[in-house]
Amino acid sequence: MMKKSRFSIIVLIVLLWTSFASLQGQMRNRIVSPEVSDANEITFRLFAPKAEEVKIYGEWLTSYTELTPLIKNDTGLWSVTVGPVEPEIYGYMFLVDGLTVLDPSNPLVRRDGQRNASLVLVPGPASELYGVHEVPHGVLSQVWYPSPTIGKDRRMYVYTPPGYNKGKEKYPVLYLLHGAGGDEDAWTTMGRAPEIMDNLIAQGKAKPMIVVMTNGNAWQTAGPGSAPDAPPLTREDFQNFRGKFEESLVNDVIPYIEKNYRVRASKESRAIAGLSMGGMHTINVTTSHPDVFGYIGVFSSGIFQPDQDLSNEMLALQKSGIKKYWVGIGEDDFLMESNKRLLDALEKAGITYEYYENTGGHSWNNWRIYLSRYAPMLFK
Amino acid sequence: MMKKSRFSIIVLIVLLWTSFASLQGQMRNRIVSPEVSDANEITFRLFAPKAEEVKIYGEWLTSYTELTPLIKNDTGLWSVTVGPVEPEIYGYMFLVDGLTVLDPSNPLVRRDGQRNASLVLVPGPASELYGVHEVPHGVLSQVWYPSPTIGKDRRMYVYTPPGYNKGKEKYPVLYLLHGAGGDEDAWTTMGRAPEIMDNLIAQGKAKPMIVVMTNGNAWQTAGPGSAPDAPPLTREDFQNFRGKFEESLVNDVIPYIEKNYRVRASKESRAIAGLSMGGMHTINVTTSHPDVFGYIGVFSSGIFQPDQDLSNEMLALQKSGIKKYWVGIGEDDFLMESNKRLLDALEKAGITYEYYENTGGHSWNNWRIYLSRYAPMLFK
Repeated sequence: MMKKSRFSIIVLIVLLWTSFASLQGQMRNRIVSPEVSDANEITFRLFAPKAEEVKIYGEWLTSYTELTPLIKNDTGLWSVTVGPVEPEIYGYMFLVDGLTVLDPSNPLVRRDGQRNASLVLVPGPASELYGVHEVPHGVLSQVWYPSPTIGKDRRMYVYTPPGYNKGKEKYPVLYLLHGAGGDEDAWTTMGRAPEIMDNLIAQGKAKPMIVVMTNGNAWQTAGPGSAPDAPPLTREDFQNFRGKFEESLVNDVIPYIEKNYRVRASKESRAIAGLSMGGMHTINVTTSHPDVFGYIGVFSSGIFQPDQDLSNEMLALQKSGIKKYWVGIGEDDFLMESNKRLLDALEKAGITYEYYENTGGHSWNNWRIYLSRYAPMLFK
Repeated sequence: MMKKSRFSIIVLIVLLWTSFASLQGQMRNRIVSPEVSDANEITFRLFAPKAEEVKIYGEWLTSYTELTPLIKNDTGLWSVTVGPVEPEIYGYMFLVDGLTVLDPSNPLVRRDGQRNASLVLVPGPASELYGVHEVPHGVLSQVWYPSPTIGKDRRMYVYTPPGYNKGKEKYPVLYLLHGAGGDEDAWTTMGRAPEIMDNLIAQGKAKPMIVVMTNGNAWQTAGPGSAPDAPPLTREDFQNFRGKFEESLVNDVIPYIEKNYRVRASKESRAIAGLSMGGMHTINVTTSHPDVFGYIGVFSSGIFQPDQDLSNEMLALQKSGIKKYWVGIGEDDFLMESNKRLLDALEKAGITYEYYENTGGHSWNNWRIYLSRYAPMLFK
């Protein structure tokens, strides 16, 4: 066997494979973007000789209205260096003469509901939990389950911790809910929940647990591209789905998980947490079913209306006994007033809660932080 | 509880969530792209008032050099209608004054190795198997397994068929390998293997089976974004990985699967298939281990050199007994000569094979077709 020539053919195939990029006249393969320096500065580059103006929006910026301009050199290569920035995972995109353009030199793209962004991870202590490291990894599965409440099979993600396949142990379960605009992909793509759990478990900071990430949009069976075709919905259709997700969580999802996985099926072995709309789902389902979850986390507020009265339900929840009620929000979150109403209601009902307020607003940056703080408190 | 006002808040949050798009001045939320007509024409639209030239490349075109121009209207909206095209899944991208731009109105993006493309599915009989339908779905899992051969934990996808979790049945296994430039994501994102298997099994055309989709780049632990940071490799490093993937498949992957899943661990219950570089892996591993796989599929040729002599190994393979040797390739495939050498070698060794030649070349379009034809022949 002539291994050397065979290797050359592989090189040839790789070159053919990447020739499309060069045909685009972009010199893409020679452009490095993004490039993260040891000092946590990020350099972005885009080859666009005909563009008049190139700017970048990235999640390190605090405002959509002040984007960072790139500078063009005489070859038509635009570039800018930003930072130093905090170690984090940032979504970003270029605006080329007003047109949204993902970074063609960066294969990492993440979908947030209906739109996409390029992705850059700035390593460092603060983002250590979000990276993939050489630690034991859990299994992340896409699972379709029957939802009689909604009348469809629906899709969710199930994370089983390292070691699940080896032993006979039964595990506790965290039900982790996304916000409006997201779907069942959100906690794995933007939330980095599998990486966070792998790392927290490897460090001995969190108990090994199963994490179930559902689709909280009751009118969907799955996110874009993963759902069977269905006719468009009217506003009335949407209204008919109100409250259905919360019902289906208790009536369909939990029974499915407890039948098909090795789990401890008790209140003190069930936790729930949700962000924004998922926080509202969390408030709804824990007040309507006070005996189901022993641990409750509300991230960036659930939606709690001025005219909403859950005092009886909160009292019942208090009486039923809660191991931990945890509330986290950023000081600039636009749902801060709603969050204060939640805290008032908890206090009136005599529910002890732990409150964490940090900088920033309604962003995945904060939701990753909240999961990183919440998961270690569970099942201990 | 005031459900109506709570619903309004959700609508508000959704609006806030999507406001970024409107800030970009793109009128994105009003632009529909792509739009597939009943006649299988596809209309693409892009709002780019300052662009001088917008073209589109899509996989329905047979050449990278003849792209389709879009026409600008007086509001700055560019559009073009192509087709009718065959029912298929097509990757596409805009070229805006030479810059590669994914369709900002389309959330569906798929990664092919180092680059991304927007995605459109044209429904019809020919692509029926590639869509998500209301049929029982298998579970698709991302699994890390130890690879002592390569010295790392590595990532793969495991598809378990509908019903796997319910019974005690043992299943046969198909090991499905990607080509150069791809990684362990390729058969699920571009190959639509989970959808194809769900649909073939639902139609009674394929036996329920487990499908294992590995990463054939021995120097990687996982695809971009899913692997721990590692130093860049030299050309010598790459050479040292030659043949390691094939070894690890037999020494690491198969034992892991047969230990951790309910599988039938026998030659007649193991199938392998691979495309291009994965076809080469298939040829290598089946000739070096003739007793392992009962079914062998080579898609778009393995790489088979003029100076390569596998006659002894092929004879041993013939003697060991093969249930099915299946070869598929497109008439325009650039590896056709290599494919003919494979057929010659099979004939000289007296290995009966089934040959399928269709139109087209070295493309995922064909590899989806080959999987759709190969899987129904297995384990019968």
